[in-house]
Amino acid sequence: MKNIQIFDTTLRDGEQSPGASIAPERKIVIARQLAKLGIDVIEPGFPVSSPGEFAAVQQISRELQNVEIAGFARAVKVDIDAAVKATQDAAKRRLHLFISSSDIHLNHQLRKSRDEVVQIAREMVAYGKQFVDEIEFSAMDSTRSGRDFVIQLVEAVIAEGATVINLPDTLGYAMPHEMIDLFQAVRREARGGETVRYSAHCHNDLGLAVANSLAAIQGGATQIEVTVNGIGERAGNCSLEELVMAIETRKDAMQAKTNVDIREIYETSRLVSRTMNFPIAYNKPIVGRNAFQHESGIHQDGLLKNRNTYEIMDPEAMGISRNMIILGKHSGSHAIKHRLAEYGVEVTDDQFKNVFSRFKEVADGQKIVTDDQLIRIAGEMTKTQPDPFALIDLQVHAGTQRSRSATVTIRENEQGVEESYMAMGAGPLEAVIHAIGQAIPVSVEFEDLELHSLSTGEDAHGEAVVSIVHNGTRYRGTSANKDIILAAAEAYISACNQAIMTAGARNRVKEKRTANE
Amino acid sequence: MKNIQIFDTTLRDGEQSPGASIAPERKIVIARQLAKLGIDVIEPGFPVSSPGEFAAVQQISRELQNVEIAGFARAVKVDIDAAVKATQDAAKRRLHLFISSSDIHLNHQLRKSRDEVVQIAREMVAYGKQFVDEIEFSAMDSTRSGRDFVIQLVEAVIAEGATVINLPDTLGYAMPHEMIDLFQAVRREARGGETVRYSAHCHNDLGLAVANSLAAIQGGATQIEVTVNGIGERAGNCSLEELVMAIETRKDAMQAKTNVDIREIYETSRLVSRTMNFPIAYNKPIVGRNAFQHESGIHQDGLLKNRNTYEIMDPEAMGISRNMIILGKHSGSHAIKHRLAEYGVEVTDDQFKNVFSRFKEVADGQKIVTDDQLIRIAGEMTKTQPDPFALIDLQVHAGTQRSRSATVTIRENEQGVEESYMAMGAGPLEAVIHAIGQAIPVSVEFEDLELHSLSTGEDAHGEAVVSIVHNGTRYRGTSANKDIILAAAEAYISACNQAIMTAGARNRVKEKRTANE
Repeated sequence: MKNIQIFDTTLRDGEQSPGASIAPERKIVIARQLAKLGIDVIEPGFPVSSPGEFAAVQQISRELQNVEIAGFARAVKVDIDAAVKATQDAAKRRLHLFISSSDIHLNHQLRKSRDEVVQIAREMVAYGKQFVDEIEFSAMDSTRSGRDFVIQLVEAVIAEGATVINLPDTLGYAMPHEMIDLFQAVRREARGGETVRYSAHCHNDLGLAVANSLAAIQGGATQIEVTVNGIGERAGNCSLEELVMAIETRKDAMQAKTNVDIREIYETSRLVSRTMNFPIAYNKPIVGRNAFQHESGIHQDGLLKNRNTYEIMDPEAMGISRNMIILGKHSGSHAIKHRLAEYGVEVTDDQFKNVFSRFKEVADGQKIVTDDQLIRIAGEMTKTQPDPFALIDLQVHAGTQRSRSATVTIRENEQGVEESYMAMGAGPLEAVIHAIGQAIPVSVEFEDLELHSLSTGEDAHGEAVVSIVHNGTRYRGTSANKDIILAAAEAYISACNQAIMTAGARNRVKEKRTANE
Repeated sequence: MKNIQIFDTTLRDGEQSPGASIAPERKIVIARQLAKLGIDVIEPGFPVSSPGEFAAVQQISRELQNVEIAGFARAVKVDIDAAVKATQDAAKRRLHLFISSSDIHLNHQLRKSRDEVVQIAREMVAYGKQFVDEIEFSAMDSTRSGRDFVIQLVEAVIAEGATVINLPDTLGYAMPHEMIDLFQAVRREARGGETVRYSAHCHNDLGLAVANSLAAIQGGATQIEVTVNGIGERAGNCSLEELVMAIETRKDAMQAKTNVDIREIYETSRLVSRTMNFPIAYNKPIVGRNAFQHESGIHQDGLLKNRNTYEIMDPEAMGISRNMIILGKHSGSHAIKHRLAEYGVEVTDDQFKNVFSRFKEVADGQKIVTDDQLIRIAGEMTKTQPDPFALIDLQVHAGTQRSRSATVTIRENEQGVEESYMAMGAGPLEAVIHAIGQAIPVSVEFEDLELHSLSTGEDAHGEAVVSIVHNGTRYRGTSANKDIILAAAEAYISACNQAIMTAGARNRVKEKRTANE
């Protein structure tokens, strides 16, 4: 079975997503998680591009001694000097040089002949090789380049000491069968071609980045360049989680494996999304919130009989808790009864009729129903499990004046005590979060707030998703309302209630599952 | 060159996206656009599932006489009867029957033997054939089924009159090379296998839906089932726009074409996103807002020299206006100067220095800069082109009480007149939109408001995107602020300003481009 190296460029090519920037000094947070995930090579930035980038690459090189660090450089001395210097303190490092190989780039952008490009590539690889043993050479736009020229260029840089040959599909143009051919031809025909490692770097403009990366492996590549969540220029790069899970799920067909610890996939995806401010599509494979959602009654019925009928991966193996799997308007009564039982909520048949009909009402109005909401509905209908906390009143004042303030009244249901609090914030949402934070006398750490439009138009429903951490476990509350501020407040209280109510129930579920295994 | 039929199931399988529901009576709106797009077959719903679904399929069958309508049915009489009846009035129609073919579905869900499944399939195809000539038969989970059994089942239904054989990759499990093999084998080995049309229906769980659909074409399929924006169960279905543009862009490699009018692609994508309340990922190929965004200075430099250096598709050919292509913090001075010139904004070199440095400030703070914002910056720096309208003051009161109100003061800059207005709404955003709507004395039609989290945490920046229509052209204003309500207000005014300011400038650009061609 071939071992495939994963080269992560989230912090270099990924950071070039419009809207996905990250302050250089925060890159270390993501790099640490990538190391934990088991990435083989991290490309943390473009050292020559700014002092901040240089410092970030330097810091990551110093701290992460168990992962190889790539210094990215155009084939010019000033770039190479910066990349060499920034990665100086890495325990393992490589220099990653690139130059275009397509005629359209040569003629219109570089304005150099093929011979000139070969000469530059030779000189710069030789120059870099004085400082660094491991040299990765990328022939940019190689999939739109003349095959003969790619082979000539690759031969030249191998002769000068390049150890990894990357053939990027820079514009996401290639078809899988072409990728197989390209890698096979270069490996076979370039002199010294069998002595180096091959790598693919695919973009997703036609939706083919993962397929082209797998095709490269079939053609002989043993390194794939990826980004977390597939971020990057335009439609982005090959997505780390899709590639890794395709190899993992289809080991039989690929005869390949990676060193990635798949248990860290979901956490890595969330961290990048949060830190780089780049939302994940609902229908993103593996990590999107719908990725393991089954709406069809036929599918839900099959899943209850045997999960393998409609599931080719186990979300929990990637750190995705099943309680994030959301019920919706197509969910049948079996699925809902089953979910309640998982939380240890017992209802009589008569009570269940009411729960189900209320569930349908909620699902029709807001399309998704979280476990927390379901438990709350069951509580309302059976009057056995009231929410620990309820929002009684909320008032917000906001606008262009400097102070935004919120007043909340929260009832603690068990004692029946109501208390009011007020707080200010940079925006109305922050004011609300602060005010509720004072009102809830439980140790929760506020983590994250996301907003989405659920419907559009001037009377749009907004959805708010709030994440909190309680006793080391993450809870997410969601709510949808025409008033986005009210939705955020409800979501926050919902997350707190969920933490309190399900902490006990989840422990019971775990015990039950362990007993069944 | 092979002609590939596009079968759209946005309204059936796509509607099974958690969160992507649509009221049955609104399906006609999307169906009309699909017909305009040039789709060959539309599957508008699952007639037996509810009276609303039945009525929607019936209405679409009656109205759209130039497109084939598929009635979806399990292989049971009650489903077939409903599908036959609902599509009765279609000018062209087919019956689409399915049953599982994998052992895991047979053993755990259907609890039937292979022989029983063949028997049911035979009987139901024969039953349907009495009413409808065109019968599509789907062997659900065919990519996880024994090859011999798929061939046996296909042979049986062809013998009973099935005319289209669909081999769905129901769980997104297949690899492209396996898809080629499967289609080639079934066509070659099933008796009568060369007399029918073959179809693929791929899911995207491992990110391979488009690649597997293209592979099916290479294996002999001439129909592909897709959804707009790739919506659908879990990670969704093969995305219409990615598949169609892959075939279009790589005609040379695929030797295939479709009947789709690609000019309608963007409008179709937006309509489905709006109507079904399902946001499009920023990095979605073709239709995501980053799909044609180039952040890297190297790429932007190449594009200015020759667009083909870094663009394999022309976004304008798909109805994506280039003024939606957003500048960001990596944009170089050349790109910005070029963009200003496109809008006919002329600045001296000294003025440009100020514009560029202000642009960088804005880009650092909010990551993206729209054309409208750029034009506004140029106006501020050159004092030649002030915004028509400016937000002077905004106050919002919101909360759990029934009325949410907003007060705005707007200055019309040319006359220097300030006026205040107030309005109520179901939420604070609606109140703000209403109040500004009164204040702007220009005929604009409010169309759409989207919210996104740009950063997370309690002091998160929110981004608001507002679309309006003015004189038949759509304008989008965006703004980012810690106060999401203020962001929405600024975005709305920005859209109005853009409409007024760019309507003239854009006409100048068009004249200039036409003159250059």
